Amino acid sequence: MEELQGDKELYQEYLCAAVEIAKKAGEEIRATFQSKKTVEMKSSPADLVTETDQKVEQLIISFLRSKFPDHCFIGEETTAAGVHCELTDNPTWIIDPVDGTTNFVHSFQFVAVSIGLSVSKENVVGVVYNPILDELFTAIKGQGAYCNGKPISCSKQQDISQCLALVEIGSSRVSAHLQTKLQNISSILQQGVHGVRSLGSAALNICQVARGGGDVYVEHGIHCWDMAAGDIILREAGGVTIDPKGGPLDLMSRCLIAASSPQLALSVSACLTHIDYQRD
Amino acid sequence: MEELQGDKELYQEYLCAAVEIAKKAGEEIRATFQSKKTVEMKSSPADLVTETDQKVEQLIISFLRSKFPDHCFIGEETTAAGVHCELTDNPTWIIDPVDGTTNFVHSFQFVAVSIGLSVSKENVVGVVYNPILDELFTAIKGQGAYCNGKPISCSKQQDISQCLALVEIGSSRVSAHLQTKLQNISSILQQGVHGVRSLGSAALNICQVARGGGDVYVEHGIHCWDMAAGDIILREAGGVTIDPKGGPLDLMSRCLIAASSPQLALSVSACLTHIDYQRD
Repeated sequence: MEELQGDKELYQEYLCAAVEIAKKAGEEIRATFQSKKTVEMKSSPADLVTETDQKVEQLIISFLRSKFPDHCFIGEETTAAGVHCELTDNPTWIIDPVDGTTNFVHSFQFVAVSIGLSVSKENVVGVVYNPILDELFTAIKGQGAYCNGKPISCSKQQDISQCLALVEIGSSRVSAHLQTKLQNISSILQQGVHGVRSLGSAALNICQVARGGGDVYVEHGIHCWDMAAGDIILREAGGVTIDPKGGPLDLMSRCLIAASSPQLALSVSACLTHIDYQRD
Repeated sequence: MEELQGDKELYQEYLCAAVEIAKKAGEEIRATFQSKKTVEMKSSPADLVTETDQKVEQLIISFLRSKFPDHCFIGEETTAAGVHCELTDNPTWIIDPVDGTTNFVHSFQFVAVSIGLSVSKENVVGVVYNPILDELFTAIKGQGAYCNGKPISCSKQQDISQCLALVEIGSSRVSAHLQTKLQNISSILQQGVHGVRSLGSAALNICQVARGGGDVYVEHGIHCWDMAAGDIILREAGGVTIDPKGGPLDLMSRCLIAASSPQLALSVSACLTHIDYQRD
């Protein structure tokens, strides 16, 4: 029990640090949101990066490293720059400085700082902050999920024909990927869902399910930094995350289903054609 | 000149009245947004209506009718209840009490009150109010477009390969419609757009283009009350609205392209397969 109490206090300290630096990072994003950005291409014309992504990631990592020098780090831009992305049992901060970079480039309101902490390969602390709408989603393992300090919970919807689904085309422009993704959207629609929506930010899509503003979200092609924080936020809000093939979530597998109930997650899983991406 | 000055003052009076009642309507929507709604089906399992839609439309029409007894009215729920929908040269208020009803049912943040005024079949005043995010978009012909009182302008993007596109599946579940809509999304993606997004509210999609938060929006199957207010807001923000076939916008034709430039509107038009819906 003593050890558990110690963990609880430690996790609260980690959350406070993550919130502090997410808010600072948010100020940087907000300051340049409406201006014209210098944009570089990564893997495809739809996979973009800006100076802000790189600057904000450095800001976050240097802050957390100074507080927790023994911890490990996985960051989107550090990985893009060639650093090997490895998840061990060590406490590891998994960071997307600007989730929704294409939205950021286009001044579309759904951008977020996503900071998750994994311990023994389990996500235990999550912060997703949208600085444009000033919405801060937070969670600690076993302590519930919050938006701007108020408890949130998912819809508990089990019936696919009564749900609002979040889907994404993503940044790959490989023809076979596009076709399978459109086919998957078509399959979901054939289950009679009320509608499909796309916000263009994985972290914020997961948080929509967590707050009960959508019932299920599925995407192939995303990365561990898009899901780590959202995963613990959604599970603490009463939802589930699984691998789209139906098994447990694999953070490095590049895909997930985030849902308001296990039944709904499996209903969506059953109507998908799987796409394999190179693991993180 | 005197007559024009008179029009200007009159239009400002109309805008003030529309803003006043849109804010009151927004209070009603906000009050029930998080609660479980009583939902009825209209044309399909994805075409929904709640008590709030009907109550809010009555509130708006009775307020505007008391102020402007000579004006005509077209409202989504009044039309659904069997009143013939006719647009004449008379000043006509065109009203969607809850644009994005499916979002409202699912507590997804993109819902709006949309109130447009058409005079001689031209939209001259527009109010789109999202009470959840507290964003009020307004425009008067010749006097610019605003969000919460601050001037807005569209992106002026002309190049389809550099754009963020807003697309929707909509509420029809007719198989041929779904297939054509998915094919149209695929065609737009093949032009190399940076991404596609779906908010599930026509009025708010148009306003995203108006504020420069997206470059182009296309939808088949919507109604005059989804577009009237957005049309004048976007044109006053420097954008264009056209018929998806490439001609001028026809408010009763059930479809539109809203874009940040004429070039972009025509590029999107060129890659679409058209869908005919029964006119309003």
